[in-house]
Amino acid sequence: MTLPNILFTINGNSHSVGSQTVNLTEDRGLAYGHGLFETLLFSQSALPLIDRHLLRLIPDSHLLGISLQSGDVQHYLNLFLEALSDQSITDGVIKIMVTAGSGGRGYKMPDTIIPSLIFSYNPLPEDTAKHRKQGVDVRLCEHFIGNGSTLAGIKHLNRLDQVIARSEWSHDKYADGIMLSVNGDVVEATSANIFVKTKEGKWITPTLDQSGVSGVMRGLLIDRIFPACDLSVSEASLTLDELLMSQQILLCNSVKGILRVNSVSSAMDKQLLALPSDHQSLMLCEKLMELYPHYQ
Amino acid sequence: MTLPNILFTINGNSHSVGSQTVNLTEDRGLAYGHGLFETLLFSQSALPLIDRHLLRLIPDSHLLGISLQSGDVQHYLNLFLEALSDQSITDGVIKIMVTAGSGGRGYKMPDTIIPSLIFSYNPLPEDTAKHRKQGVDVRLCEHFIGNGSTLAGIKHLNRLDQVIARSEWSHDKYADGIMLSVNGDVVEATSANIFVKTKEGKWITPTLDQSGVSGVMRGLLIDRIFPACDLSVSEASLTLDELLMSQQILLCNSVKGILRVNSVSSAMDKQLLALPSDHQSLMLCEKLMELYPHYQ
Repeated sequence: MTLPNILFTINGNSHSVGSQTVNLTEDRGLAYGHGLFETLLFSQSALPLIDRHLLRLIPDSHLLGISLQSGDVQHYLNLFLEALSDQSITDGVIKIMVTAGSGGRGYKMPDTIIPSLIFSYNPLPEDTAKHRKQGVDVRLCEHFIGNGSTLAGIKHLNRLDQVIARSEWSHDKYADGIMLSVNGDVVEATSANIFVKTKEGKWITPTLDQSGVSGVMRGLLIDRIFPACDLSVSEASLTLDELLMSQQILLCNSVKGILRVNSVSSAMDKQLLALPSDHQSLMLCEKLMELYPHYQ
Repeated sequence: MTLPNILFTINGNSHSVGSQTVNLTEDRGLAYGHGLFETLLFSQSALPLIDRHLLRLIPDSHLLGISLQSGDVQHYLNLFLEALSDQSITDGVIKIMVTAGSGGRGYKMPDTIIPSLIFSYNPLPEDTAKHRKQGVDVRLCEHFIGNGSTLAGIKHLNRLDQVIARSEWSHDKYADGIMLSVNGDVVEATSANIFVKTKEGKWITPTLDQSGVSGVMRGLLIDRIFPACDLSVSEASLTLDELLMSQQILLCNSVKGILRVNSVSSAMDKQLLALPSDHQSLMLCEKLMELYPHYQ
């Protein structure tokens, strides 16, 4: 078994762990985006969805040729939590980045991959409480998300589409932007998945077989939150027209939880849709906070 | 003007240059693949296509929000060449990597981007002389290249498609693999562009408006090598069927130059096409070596 190289970063200060050091200059994560990441809510010294994060990270890393063991990640994560505890840090965001390490010849992977495992901590985004309480305004992005990738669903390090889409606006009016595929289908927001209550009153979330990230919070909503509210939800394709006729829109990710969308504007700042919250949206948000109080 | 942070790497040994150091752990190149790279042939202490590399790198970096100045790159490149000279290194491959540096909030870019500029040196791939002389065998990749990206053409750091495609075979029988888009169109090889002499005797190279890298050597072939041979060449879509009925196939990149393709096999190792070299292919290869002797 190959032990990963480890790096800890707390508020921008990095230090290596153990004898093996990470040489990021030659790292395949930097060179090609050959790796994955998880972004975890760290609340009152707990990681409420850690099991779901690991259940995604480990099999997806294998899809990229990185044979990571769950036990190893857990072991170093525990050391990282101790390092945070030593600094009296109890709340924020923990990012786990896994790359294919260095080596190989160009795109060709080395015979033995020694993964790089990077744990970093940053404070919770300032607007988190406000967004959870008041909901958010969003806009449509002009930049399309690439389509037809067999890597769809994986939270890999190739995220230029999201970077370019997020660069379309710089003010704080919009919390996020909704991204469409080249086919005109709604895929996700730049940093969140999306759930929609259609004109007909059905809850759906876009299928992610062509592009997009299969989010941990998205999975939780489908598996636990919707059933706990006695609401059915299904994965389906969603056109822009259907989005703009919807009764409710929710964004979700593993850091912020569920965010009600109050309005959708065009890329030209024209409001296309206003959405007063309904009792089903509120019930879903409250159910998450009831079952997972860390998202309060 | 914002000066970039600089890192030099020679055969895996890195060192910072100047007072500002590159913190790769927080670098947007690692986090999102927010950056670009150039791979240059370094031959007899010269960089034969440096002008073309810079003419691609600078405008493409601006497309990713990185306001890099050609003079800065040239300045640090000269320092890097001095460092190589100090070690009596005269031949090999120089990689210039440009990233958006650190900062920003998630996908959102920082207000001021301080680019990271990483120069690295590695020896020429061992098989270069053999491939130039004898040509290469290639296979078809099963992994499709994502389609419909407005980032098509840019040599950015989001290269997972190429990594996954290159992982489909591990032996040395095939020098490269040909990648198709989800539409079934031929796009490029994992690390080279492709030129085809069709059944009708016309030379074409796939259009790269949907995906693929607009290679420096590809540009040189179109602008200089084909005209110097009195051959016309055009950009066009190319189906797999057309590829498999072609009379000649050439691969090209800025390190290896032009490589004749001797055979194309399926992903199941079945030879689909054998291509004895014709005088036009040989003439194109010879013209490159005549005009750019570093590719001999």
